[in-house]
Amino acid sequence: MNCGICAGSLGFRYRYHDVSWDDRFDGTMWRYWPLLPVDPPDGAVTLGEGGTPLLRARSFEEHRVYLKDETRNPTGSHKDRSLSVAITHAKAIGADVSVIVSTGSAGISNAALAARAGLRSVVVMTEGTPPERLYPMFGLGAALVEVKAPIDPIVHGVIDVCREQGLYLSTTSRNSNPYQAEGNKTIAFEIVEELGKAPDWVVVPVGGGGTVSGVWRGFRDCRALGLIDSVPRMIGVVPADYNALEVAFERGLNRWEDVLALPYDNLPPSILVKLAHSYPPDGMEALGTIRSSNGFFVSVTDEEALSAQEACGRREGLFVEPSTGACLAGTTRLMDSGQVHLEDVVVAIVSGSGYRETACTMDSRPLRKQSVSLEELSTSLTGF
Amino acid sequence: MNCGICAGSLGFRYRYHDVSWDDRFDGTMWRYWPLLPVDPPDGAVTLGEGGTPLLRARSFEEHRVYLKDETRNPTGSHKDRSLSVAITHAKAIGADVSVIVSTGSAGISNAALAARAGLRSVVVMTEGTPPERLYPMFGLGAALVEVKAPIDPIVHGVIDVCREQGLYLSTTSRNSNPYQAEGNKTIAFEIVEELGKAPDWVVVPVGGGGTVSGVWRGFRDCRALGLIDSVPRMIGVVPADYNALEVAFERGLNRWEDVLALPYDNLPPSILVKLAHSYPPDGMEALGTIRSSNGFFVSVTDEEALSAQEACGRREGLFVEPSTGACLAGTTRLMDSGQVHLEDVVVAIVSGSGYRETACTMDSRPLRKQSVSLEELSTSLTGF
Repeated sequence: MNCGICAGSLGFRYRYHDVSWDDRFDGTMWRYWPLLPVDPPDGAVTLGEGGTPLLRARSFEEHRVYLKDETRNPTGSHKDRSLSVAITHAKAIGADVSVIVSTGSAGISNAALAARAGLRSVVVMTEGTPPERLYPMFGLGAALVEVKAPIDPIVHGVIDVCREQGLYLSTTSRNSNPYQAEGNKTIAFEIVEELGKAPDWVVVPVGGGGTVSGVWRGFRDCRALGLIDSVPRMIGVVPADYNALEVAFERGLNRWEDVLALPYDNLPPSILVKLAHSYPPDGMEALGTIRSSNGFFVSVTDEEALSAQEACGRREGLFVEPSTGACLAGTTRLMDSGQVHLEDVVVAIVSGSGYRETACTMDSRPLRKQSVSLEELSTSLTGF
Repeated sequence: MNCGICAGSLGFRYRYHDVSWDDRFDGTMWRYWPLLPVDPPDGAVTLGEGGTPLLRARSFEEHRVYLKDETRNPTGSHKDRSLSVAITHAKAIGADVSVIVSTGSAGISNAALAARAGLRSVVVMTEGTPPERLYPMFGLGAALVEVKAPIDPIVHGVIDVCREQGLYLSTTSRNSNPYQAEGNKTIAFEIVEELGKAPDWVVVPVGGGGTVSGVWRGFRDCRALGLIDSVPRMIGVVPADYNALEVAFERGLNRWEDVLALPYDNLPPSILVKLAHSYPPDGMEALGTIRSSNGFFVSVTDEEALSAQEACGRREGLFVEPSTGACLAGTTRLMDSGQVHLEDVVVAIVSGSGYRETACTMDSRPLRKQSVSLEELSTSLTGF
């Protein structure tokens, strides 16, 4: 879905006068529909996305760090915000199928919201994705198509096929679908309403690059509306081995060809599968976001991410996926950088729940348990 | 936690004059704290439980059936409501550990909320629980203790040990902890606020028996407050092989000894593990609830539950656990009974998400997918 004239990316402009949030949809992101590219939401396809809690983090006691708990969305991640906009658009234009390339959260969101809308859903992925990760999509009625090819040719192939066959494409990159990109703005709207002001720092996991840019545009919308005076500095967290954007940022690269020339082919596998793009499809937009906001990139190892995931469970009470662990590891790195003042407000985006990734996490952090007889129970419990 | 004088079960009475909901906690169950057995909720231990959507079901088009989507709670089930009350109480009385007997949702809730409160959590379960079901508890920092004994002696053993050692016990049965039992009332409060009246029928999965009774007490509270004129008929759904309560109801049994005399030992395993109690610990209370409300029990097979789980995914967009499938199968049975009028409002409690049960469901309903080459992609997508 690109410009029919120049083939460039598509975005949206909004009129900012006379915008007011719609109280009828309190507790969901549809409260903010006047700044989404859809008609008034009587036709919204929704399972009640958004309205997620902003929890004070226990892990950084002296600092004001908040966790935006996006695991509370219908299928356990912020992708529900994007897909509810996309499927609402799909339904409005009379589509009867929604195709997406995804092996992760976006595929589950597509399956759930398409089911809700009465559309068929098709999820296309590369070979070898663990069946436990695919299963929820299947359980939500999606047809699963595994392709024996690397992910990039699949993404381009699916764009071509959908265009030829007139199938609605919901892949969460701007070139595939610009509508879905607007859903992430509502994360910023909710944070501003909850805090009554803009945070000073927002830490976002960067995979394809669309989330960090969407959240940033949400804060800019809030400034345009006069709801906030300042905007936060955006911190993008990438996997250590998949840090093309970090390198591009540090080297001041301005052209996508220069990013593509960086040596990021044939990288080792990472447990941070949802962030592990060699060349993130919305990478240029993400680079622009980090620069405009006066932020920076942080890269974290799989081990750091897993440790942060573990700490988040034990200290915050949130069972998150490894890729969300990466964001929290990045937050620790930000706090350790000495750049955050004591009065600063920091928000970390807790993007996805761990319940959908149990099998993957277990491989890296095996279960431990005691096994006792009934007679030994008393002695066993004495230890706690 | 029983009466120190007569050893009987404990409950709570409330004053119903001057009760008003607390708008500061909108969007969570803590809005209703004046009818919970805790102090004003500045000390509430919460991850933002409750405030779950009431979705119009697509599956019963001509009838007004709603799904109360409890999968939207912090750990994916309604048990978070019970455990947030229990852990708030535990913290208020100075406990530093919360022990629970559970192999399912309540164990995850205990782990998450104890972590949030800074308490240690211990989950005790019977041998042989699949590691995928235990893993989230481990990921949330719980110590796991597997006991080589059937579940009933474990429950009683843990009650004794906790009493001896002064450990806080959070098991979700009234005899173990009467505080947690109050959390389920808030499901009814939310339904009444959303509908502006009482539904005519409420369908609830019955495992231990506490949920159906808690929801029922919530509706009675609403009537006592003058918020509703009538109360719903409560339908309890039990597994076909574990239907002692259904039989007790139909035979008019009034004493627990008579229920215990029914032949429900050594039953075959069921995929409805969260409902499969031979003799539900809160069974007498559940029996009383169904009778008082002029409702009845429905029993469903594993196969019916799995089919309803599948239909819920494909038609409603909700990926639920098999035990929640049982509730939806029971709802279909109710609708087919001819007792529901066209103008009646029916609410089914969608109690638990399927993301925590992926491995178990996969065994019963294997994944299906296509596998194609890049060249075959176009032909493959033509089929949709």
